[in-house]
Amino acid sequence: MSEAPHLTFDLVSPGVSMGHLFVPGGADCGELSLPVFSLNKGEGPRLLVTRGNHGNELEGPLVARQLIEWLPEAPTGGRVIVLPVLNPLAVEAWSRNTPLDGLNLNRVFPGRADGSVTERIGDAVSRVLLAMADTVFDLHSFGPTWDFPPAATTHPIADRDLMARTVRMAEAFKLPLALVWDCNDTAGMFDILAQNQGKVFVCAEFGGGTVGADNLAIYEAGVRNELIALGLLEGQAEYPTFRQEKSGQTLETHPSDELKSPAPGIFEPGCSVLDEVKQGDLLGILHPMESLSSESIDIRAPGRSLVVAIRSGAHVEMNEGIAIVARPLKI
Amino acid sequence: MSEAPHLTFDLVSPGVSMGHLFVPGGADCGELSLPVFSLNKGEGPRLLVTRGNHGNELEGPLVARQLIEWLPEAPTGGRVIVLPVLNPLAVEAWSRNTPLDGLNLNRVFPGRADGSVTERIGDAVSRVLLAMADTVFDLHSFGPTWDFPPAATTHPIADRDLMARTVRMAEAFKLPLALVWDCNDTAGMFDILAQNQGKVFVCAEFGGGTVGADNLAIYEAGVRNELIALGLLEGQAEYPTFRQEKSGQTLETHPSDELKSPAPGIFEPGCSVLDEVKQGDLLGILHPMESLSSESIDIRAPGRSLVVAIRSGAHVEMNEGIAIVARPLKI
Repeated sequence: MSEAPHLTFDLVSPGVSMGHLFVPGGADCGELSLPVFSLNKGEGPRLLVTRGNHGNELEGPLVARQLIEWLPEAPTGGRVIVLPVLNPLAVEAWSRNTPLDGLNLNRVFPGRADGSVTERIGDAVSRVLLAMADTVFDLHSFGPTWDFPPAATTHPIADRDLMARTVRMAEAFKLPLALVWDCNDTAGMFDILAQNQGKVFVCAEFGGGTVGADNLAIYEAGVRNELIALGLLEGQAEYPTFRQEKSGQTLETHPSDELKSPAPGIFEPGCSVLDEVKQGDLLGILHPMESLSSESIDIRAPGRSLVVAIRSGAHVEMNEGIAIVARPLKI
Repeated sequence: MSEAPHLTFDLVSPGVSMGHLFVPGGADCGELSLPVFSLNKGEGPRLLVTRGNHGNELEGPLVARQLIEWLPEAPTGGRVIVLPVLNPLAVEAWSRNTPLDGLNLNRVFPGRADGSVTERIGDAVSRVLLAMADTVFDLHSFGPTWDFPPAATTHPIADRDLMARTVRMAEAFKLPLALVWDCNDTAGMFDILAQNQGKVFVCAEFGGGTVGADNLAIYEAGVRNELIALGLLEGQAEYPTFRQEKSGQTLETHPSDELKSPAPGIFEPGCSVLDEVKQGDLLGILHPMESLSSESIDIRAPGRSLVVAIRSGAHVEMNEGIAIVARPLKI
């Protein structure tokens, strides 16, 4: 019988403390120790910040390190727990899923104590850390084969009060985009587990591609804004600069807003994220590669909308997503 | 006994013809048909253009499709053969190596007729197509976790005359960078096989990351410049615009010019490609992730040089490459 998941240090100690979340070993690999940072300034909101859920989205772990550097000196109250790398096996492999068991950590929550390594990480985080927080920020980067603006996202929530509080918190990041994302593939997400427990959960998504200085600066400003909005940090929230502008908008997108590839091939993007498009505008071109005599296929906007995500530089299968459009949120 | 590799059509037919390169099946997978384009305008230089060697470098295959569209109408002589996707299994998986056998196609040349699928592709290309050309352009994109300027590269060649002709051809692309790359890991490269047969072989490398419109335009201009330089196409060669400039420089880099990571962690780039740096300038920061108490490590330039490649947004192991610098070529 292996040891149960636990923290190697006492989170209720006042001030800064650091240690690890112990994830028991199993048949597929040995135990893991995930570094955890805690700042306890007593009564107040309790925030859990997680990053490195998907291993090819690396801005989050870097912002976590910056946060750990400046937060202890800042005028704060309440409690902040930071877990910079949820899935070290995927981060080391620069891979969305865990190479060892092929699982997507963000589809296995609440995990299983006797499962494979990804499920054991999910179980340890769910049982040990989630219970200690009222609010969760999970920092993603949308993956390397998409372009996506700096955004705070949530899925629709049946509880109208929790939905309203979650959208307000997403907007408080003051990023270029706050997005209510109605999608079908939510089973096993960390978001859903936390929201079902009545917690405010906001997922930040950043830009795709690789780590860049601009995105890191925007990400850090967004996290700072959130801490201010929660009352954890004193200061003035401000829109970070994105494409020479300081502004944000709140949109919604539904399953029918995702455009699918009409054939297998290489997708060449023909627009940028946050572009306003009208029916018939070119979004990109799909180039079939199996035969040189097949014509390239123009992909056009189905109606008036804003582009929130565009595939960039990947081979896509038929019916794989290549663009996502959205419209202003109506609550 | 399986069929030998062959072309499904007659390359000596005048004008445009299209068909496939047949790669025999083996124990690991069935036969493959790689689309091939041929334009035969009679006597003159014989050029082979290959792309899609590594599956996560997708500008090349798109430029190949553009080339196939405009080349038949252009005033040309000689013969051009285009193979847009050398390794369809890797392209479909957006993976540098072939998922089925884990091999890097650009390290298995001349391949093996009775080998695994990657070796069989290498064998078919080496035996059937390489013999039909005097000059080869292989179009790469440097992979998604590096930043790299649009560049035409070659390895040093012992034959001084072939070396001079190869550098002239690399410069004729008129890209921002022509680079003589002295590296240790060249066994099994397509380049080396072709150069050992006395052929001019230039490898174009483009920008890393994902497919973008700017890179595609520069790549297409570079290929057009090469066709003009070879005498295959009439017209005037011009430098394409890169960062608001039209210029090119020729550099050299050696194994000792590659900076290695001093520890495992996430590398945050702190400079851009083609930046001029002097000793001590910051190139980037390595953030260890295994322990939150380890300090981040500044990576600094070892001396006066130009940055030609910088890792962007990837977890790196200890001693993995994170930056490559270079200096003006001295022949």
